[in-house]
Amino acid sequence: MSTNKITFLTNWEATPYHLPIFLAQTRGYYEREGIEVAILEPTNPSDVTALIGSGKVDMGLKAMIHTLAAKARGYPVTSFGSLLNEPFTGLITLKGNGINDFKDIKGKRIGYVGEFGKIQLDDLCSKFGLSPSDYTAIRCGMNIAPAIINGEIDGGIGIECMQQVELERWCVSQGRPRSDVQMLRIDRLANLGCCCFCTILYIAHDEFIAKHPDKIKAFLRAIHSATLDMLKDPVQTYKEYIHFKREMGSELHREQFERCFAYFSHDISNVPRDWNKVTNYSKRLGIIPQDFEPNCTNGYLTWELDPDEKDPMGKQEAIAEIQDEIKQKGGVFSGNSLRYVEPANL
Amino acid sequence: MSTNKITFLTNWEATPYHLPIFLAQTRGYYEREGIEVAILEPTNPSDVTALIGSGKVDMGLKAMIHTLAAKARGYPVTSFGSLLNEPFTGLITLKGNGINDFKDIKGKRIGYVGEFGKIQLDDLCSKFGLSPSDYTAIRCGMNIAPAIINGEIDGGIGIECMQQVELERWCVSQGRPRSDVQMLRIDRLANLGCCCFCTILYIAHDEFIAKHPDKIKAFLRAIHSATLDMLKDPVQTYKEYIHFKREMGSELHREQFERCFAYFSHDISNVPRDWNKVTNYSKRLGIIPQDFEPNCTNGYLTWELDPDEKDPMGKQEAIAEIQDEIKQKGGVFSGNSLRYVEPANL
Repeated sequence: MSTNKITFLTNWEATPYHLPIFLAQTRGYYEREGIEVAILEPTNPSDVTALIGSGKVDMGLKAMIHTLAAKARGYPVTSFGSLLNEPFTGLITLKGNGINDFKDIKGKRIGYVGEFGKIQLDDLCSKFGLSPSDYTAIRCGMNIAPAIINGEIDGGIGIECMQQVELERWCVSQGRPRSDVQMLRIDRLANLGCCCFCTILYIAHDEFIAKHPDKIKAFLRAIHSATLDMLKDPVQTYKEYIHFKREMGSELHREQFERCFAYFSHDISNVPRDWNKVTNYSKRLGIIPQDFEPNCTNGYLTWELDPDEKDPMGKQEAIAEIQDEIKQKGGVFSGNSLRYVEPANL
Repeated sequence: MSTNKITFLTNWEATPYHLPIFLAQTRGYYEREGIEVAILEPTNPSDVTALIGSGKVDMGLKAMIHTLAAKARGYPVTSFGSLLNEPFTGLITLKGNGINDFKDIKGKRIGYVGEFGKIQLDDLCSKFGLSPSDYTAIRCGMNIAPAIINGEIDGGIGIECMQQVELERWCVSQGRPRSDVQMLRIDRLANLGCCCFCTILYIAHDEFIAKHPDKIKAFLRAIHSATLDMLKDPVQTYKEYIHFKREMGSELHREQFERCFAYFSHDISNVPRDWNKVTNYSKRLGIIPQDFEPNCTNGYLTWELDPDEKDPMGKQEAIAEIQDEIKQKGGVFSGNSLRYVEPANL
């Protein structure tokens, strides 16, 4: 017997920024759109593109750089929307671990999640006059922050709103200031202009998209409703997320949600400028061939999209300030729903 | 492009009794056996049989009663092994909630996980002279214990080593004794002689088994190694589980592991006596037709199986005493690796 359930595989164990996917379930938006969605979580984030790209799972989430690489390696997937835009990503370390500059990784143990973090590190090595053998690379999967805490690694690649928050909270528990957590942002080290390689995307197998365009549209309508609900009332919707997924109620996850809030895509669209940047970056890294065309589409979004931002670099600076303010004063749970709003006079 | 990864879907979000499945991964036993396993977790336990039974997922875990029902409903799955044997299952409630006897559910709100809990409740109603409309059934999914704590339900169907432990810990946090948590065991209420309907099984789609008998055998060899490692050194192996899955380090999960320990199957085999009991019970419940044959096999286990227990009822009593002692004095983390050993003079 077959099933109508669409399998949806998250990029990671359930985390705060998955809220819209779960809210669309608990508020009945999938049902309203006539689809059934079975949300699955991986235990190894490196399984996700192989499973979606081989058609064993219908759709899911993955970062932009992995989505490009999957296609280039013969896993035909396409991004049909965007969840979390360009969260700051970099080499996270603790004050005192001796890494103040990228070249300080010489002789150090550096953690990474999956293979692309390693490729990015090695690319930076060549830029900074190091060789990949100058540091010890340690694959940590989901556990970058605990590995730094336990002293297994001296630093590791992570995201500001996730692993960095985890490490900051540990510092606080040790009587150390949050500023003891330092991040060397990869966009700055690699002169990328954004951390869009880490943008979290909605992806599906190409055959699934071709066969079921109506299901893709229905899924996106449900997700769009849930996203707007979340942006309008983050506190109430997060409360509902906790009700469904209890572990989201921890102080760590609540704070991660506050720090994720400014990164959420409003219109869930793929941003062509970001895709061009990351496509070029991936070509340079040798992950995709020179004639590669970005495997993304906004063709299934059935509402008006936001206009292009006129000052993407200014946006990055503004978001850095917003994140700093949330770090000092708290975020949505302190009534501080800070988000980037483009200045009117641009 | 295809993938060699076997998708394995747990019956529930990652819990302490899933240890062997993760240990086989972290100790490299799957790799040793020449297979790759992608362990996935559901967010809705009710998705599991539909996904495995439709072939969208290769294999996974499910309780015995669901495994029988799946086959009867046209989802061709077969159990090829057993993880957790007959954990005590029943109507869990708090002292003071007014449920001391099954017939006390009249007028109460009773929680259940998925549809079969409701069918079991309604069957008990007819036995105790009640009608299904005499109580309000509330589907709670994974959240039976919090629903009792929040007062959303007066009691709910749960497992001794899982939801009952969660509720006991809440009682302790409130200055109440553990004995304020009460369970009316379903095996006793329904005169079943065991809680084997809740035995957690390894299941796969029949087509997958037919096509890949060697993968089933390889998977079982890996799981058998991990299971024996766990039984031999529960503390060290649980430590490794926490290293991989950090949330397992919580006090709640550690205590749940202690209470799961006596239930683990040693030889991972299906127990024919239990299957016969649950097959008959399921026929009575109208879940499966009268001519239904148990959909289980021990044909892929490549080692010598333990002999049948001579006194299954005595075993149930002995395990109840073991569980009580662990409740009072602690379990494996207090050096108390209590397990049932059949008396030599039987």
